[in-house]
Amino acid sequence: MMLINGESQSHILISDRGFQYGDGLFETIEVFNGRLLFIEQHLKRLTVSCEKLRIPPPNPQQLLDEAQSLIQNSDNAVLKIIITRGSGGRGYKMPEVIQPTRVLSLHPFPEYPLAFQQGVRVIFCQQRLGLNPILAGLKHLNRLEQILARAEWHTADIQEGLLLDLNGFCIEGTMSNVFFVKNTVLYTPTLHQAGVAGIMRDFVLQTAAALEIKVVQGQFLPEQFYAADELFLSNSVIGIWPIKQLEQTFFPHGKLTQQLQHQLAQFKQQVIADEN
Amino acid sequence: MMLINGESQSHILISDRGFQYGDGLFETIEVFNGRLLFIEQHLKRLTVSCEKLRIPPPNPQQLLDEAQSLIQNSDNAVLKIIITRGSGGRGYKMPEVIQPTRVLSLHPFPEYPLAFQQGVRVIFCQQRLGLNPILAGLKHLNRLEQILARAEWHTADIQEGLLLDLNGFCIEGTMSNVFFVKNTVLYTPTLHQAGVAGIMRDFVLQTAAALEIKVVQGQFLPEQFYAADELFLSNSVIGIWPIKQLEQTFFPHGKLTQQLQHQLAQFKQQVIADEN
Repeated sequence: MMLINGESQSHILISDRGFQYGDGLFETIEVFNGRLLFIEQHLKRLTVSCEKLRIPPPNPQQLLDEAQSLIQNSDNAVLKIIITRGSGGRGYKMPEVIQPTRVLSLHPFPEYPLAFQQGVRVIFCQQRLGLNPILAGLKHLNRLEQILARAEWHTADIQEGLLLDLNGFCIEGTMSNVFFVKNTVLYTPTLHQAGVAGIMRDFVLQTAAALEIKVVQGQFLPEQFYAADELFLSNSVIGIWPIKQLEQTFFPHGKLTQQLQHQLAQFKQQVIADEN
Repeated sequence: MMLINGESQSHILISDRGFQYGDGLFETIEVFNGRLLFIEQHLKRLTVSCEKLRIPPPNPQQLLDEAQSLIQNSDNAVLKIIITRGSGGRGYKMPEVIQPTRVLSLHPFPEYPLAFQQGVRVIFCQQRLGLNPILAGLKHLNRLEQILARAEWHTADIQEGLLLDLNGFCIEGTMSNVFFVKNTVLYTPTLHQAGVAGIMRDFVLQTAAALEIKVVQGQFLPEQFYAADELFLSNSVIGIWPIKQLEQTFFPHGKLTQQLQHQLAQFKQQVIADEN
């Protein structure tokens, strides 16, 4: 199911700059028991990202209305919103009048094994993330790096690959943010030069702050990940996955990770309770 | 006019990974007096780039046949070829079976003033190019950097902006490669960490070699461009444009630039002569 600028369609103009240049951005939102989780945060990030890319931000209420109409018969699903700069001539120059394209599409919720909540297996990718302060943090449509990195493994028993940047600092997974715990302090990479600032990453940071867990954002090397007490991944669809194996090193399903998972589960139950 | 996988169409599936992730590449080819200029070089680069991105390369003869059918009534035009990884599910993982999409579209040849052959005005962009060895050199569909850089100027009397990389070395223009001449030596930036390896850049390098002009590829700072005897831009549509003004510094339409422009004009005349 799909809406393009509010119309039920499955095709987009070839001249759309999303297709021509990856000239746009996206959000991936969990639909949980018929609710759009973290929708305010997603719409806020979308607006801020549009401004950074100089795309006129869509009306959040219109997006919300379209999203609600699309999910009305769905319990659990994934809603993807793509905003592009719309159609424009050949060449990089932005059109004089930018008429953005908005695409909302609904996808089945991935059937992840329940065991992933206890831990997943992760590798370090060989490929390095480029450095790009202008685009860092944004969930934009230029995703060739992630696609090439995701192609580094083919076995279903590996769930994610972590990426180092050109300087050797670990930034994120191909589709997730990464955290580690050492001596009850929570660490996660800064995303000033590469990476996507995930909505679930924000949830983790805010929850940790509320729980008075000390958080350090910085530049961390692989050896700091190997030496961690606990490790986990986050994104809006997977939630929080503990890392039980990084390359050949094993990690417990640690207390702090469990605490954060518990807070997320509580938050989701609260969303249902609040709206009923 | 447009062909998608050989069919006359103007729309593409939303699920095409070109739209979802900029998961593909493109070529921009001058149609000159009904001929596809440097078509062998473009098709070769397209094939090599597909391999680097792990997209099964299209059949070059099929592309050529489709290109010929599209341009049959055109004298001077621009042919754009886009190859994407085709449709695939949500997520960065490549489909098990990749069925690439090929899009050929014909565009009017831009009406550049004849005066541009004598020199254009160029600025340095404020935005820096990111560093990305994996994607450097390729004409891929992840073009947000070029779009944002091209938005730095709005006056029609500036024709191009040069971009420095994060280390401060000048790499290219937003849509062109850049060369400078100092003491009869021709210099152009290496493209190992950023930039697009243009077909016209290759022509210039090969022509310079044939003329026994010394060529140096390396990492060059803005001051070396300001101190040059001659400067010029190259791309497949503009050909070779001398730079007559870089920021507030003026340059002559130098002898070596004129020589290379003359060689290009001769090459184009020869293409017509050969096929008649």
